[in-house]
Amino acid sequence: MSAPARIVLIGAGNVGSRLAQRFADQGYPLLQVFSRSPLKRAFPAPFVNRISDIVPDAEVYLIAVPDDAIADVAAQLAGQIHPGALVAHTSGSTPSAVLSPFFEHFGVCYPLQTFSPERIPDFNEIPVCVDAPSRVDLEVLQQVAAIISPRVYHLDDRQRARVHLAAVFVNNFVNHLYHTGFQLLKEADLPFELLLPLIRETAAKIKPDSDPAYLQTGPARRGDEQTIRRHLEALAGNPEVEQLYQQITSAIQSFHQKPFPHAHHRPD
Amino acid sequence: MSAPARIVLIGAGNVGSRLAQRFADQGYPLLQVFSRSPLKRAFPAPFVNRISDIVPDAEVYLIAVPDDAIADVAAQLAGQIHPGALVAHTSGSTPSAVLSPFFEHFGVCYPLQTFSPERIPDFNEIPVCVDAPSRVDLEVLQQVAAIISPRVYHLDDRQRARVHLAAVFVNNFVNHLYHTGFQLLKEADLPFELLLPLIRETAAKIKPDSDPAYLQTGPARRGDEQTIRRHLEALAGNPEVEQLYQQITSAIQSFHQKPFPHAHHRPD
Repeated sequence: MSAPARIVLIGAGNVGSRLAQRFADQGYPLLQVFSRSPLKRAFPAPFVNRISDIVPDAEVYLIAVPDDAIADVAAQLAGQIHPGALVAHTSGSTPSAVLSPFFEHFGVCYPLQTFSPERIPDFNEIPVCVDAPSRVDLEVLQQVAAIISPRVYHLDDRQRARVHLAAVFVNNFVNHLYHTGFQLLKEADLPFELLLPLIRETAAKIKPDSDPAYLQTGPARRGDEQTIRRHLEALAGNPEVEQLYQQITSAIQSFHQKPFPHAHHRPD
Repeated sequence: MSAPARIVLIGAGNVGSRLAQRFADQGYPLLQVFSRSPLKRAFPAPFVNRISDIVPDAEVYLIAVPDDAIADVAAQLAGQIHPGALVAHTSGSTPSAVLSPFFEHFGVCYPLQTFSPERIPDFNEIPVCVDAPSRVDLEVLQQVAAIISPRVYHLDDRQRARVHLAAVFVNNFVNHLYHTGFQLLKEADLPFELLLPLIRETAAKIKPDSDPAYLQTGPARRGDEQTIRRHLEALAGNPEVEQLYQQITSAIQSFHQKPFPHAHHRPD
């Protein structure tokens, strides 16, 4: 079976616009891109901004809109397209069943990455998580996903929700800690650039097959109560950051007090 | 003034061993490296493991040992070396004054990076923070630091302590969130490799001159209470991770409820 050649994309935000470019770059230009609002940049596909202008006879429709707009967009799309078409959304945290009232053939095609207006991620590395209740539809989505990236995973709703939850920790929550570091330096008139190499290296040293706990260092890890006390004193004027410090410090301490196979890491 | 050519390094852990290699690579091989324990790998400098074998007449002695061992090492070194020598430690959180009882010339030379046995960081990017009470000693340390990296900063104890505190957030605490992501996937038999591109991209998109808050996304940022509730339900069996989720979520919400100049970021 060859990859579906007639794909329509609904949504032209950060995810949608990167996907449109990727399909074009891979030699599978999209049939159409729909977005309610005008596009902010040139698009490598014909653009429409009225639902009624969406072609009815594509093979696959990908819905890349904010989570809370998926059902609404699906309802409008349903009256417009051929009932044999396959419709998938690109959300990590939304069950595929949100599409079931509207379409016979539906599923999920979730690229697990953070997309921003200014950066083009390396699509060859991005895991794309697909799911569909029908085996045939799943196979089609696997082919669509394989256009985006060679790393295609079949995960059900429950597994995808778990991945999305973990992603909140390593992306959204981590970004808030970056912001906290920024704030701490700004308060002292110090440039954020000081932290940048550390931020990049901390991420770069993580390995795909090993618990990052093996790389854990710092005062909480080594039980350096004196430094922890000094840090808490320095944060005394900032109760929210102080609480964050205490909470994560005690989480690290509680984890590392448990039996833990310290194979190859010597704490510094 | 030319860079000091006679430098002795005390300590051969993660920091010490990378520094020794860097000095050699830069054309300034160290005069000696001292370590109490035998070396784990070949060193690009003569190695001694008795204090009494340390040469007394180097220009600079760099102490790269764990924070709580600095004073002890300094006390031993003091009886051994020429009083005109300059002695500096490499610690972020230790005041330079810890060396003042032992030496006339002392200071700090703190490379702000996480060093691990298996990775060679890009030294050209590493900020090196120097300080010394005497102007002449400071200039010498600036020259030593410039051998390590072109990015040399003069920060006093207070500023360096602040940078170290911020580093705990973006390095130690971030690593614990990586571990939490690992655990969440492991509990569901999902491979950690799924999160790796996201981890790297989240770090890569940070800019040196802009608050990471501009890049904040996710359920907390966009006030998606339904997803937050679903995540908390999923964490119900894991009170510690649940508490961490709640705490960081409310920190994000509280920050983003305040007036905040949302210049160029459209939350997704």
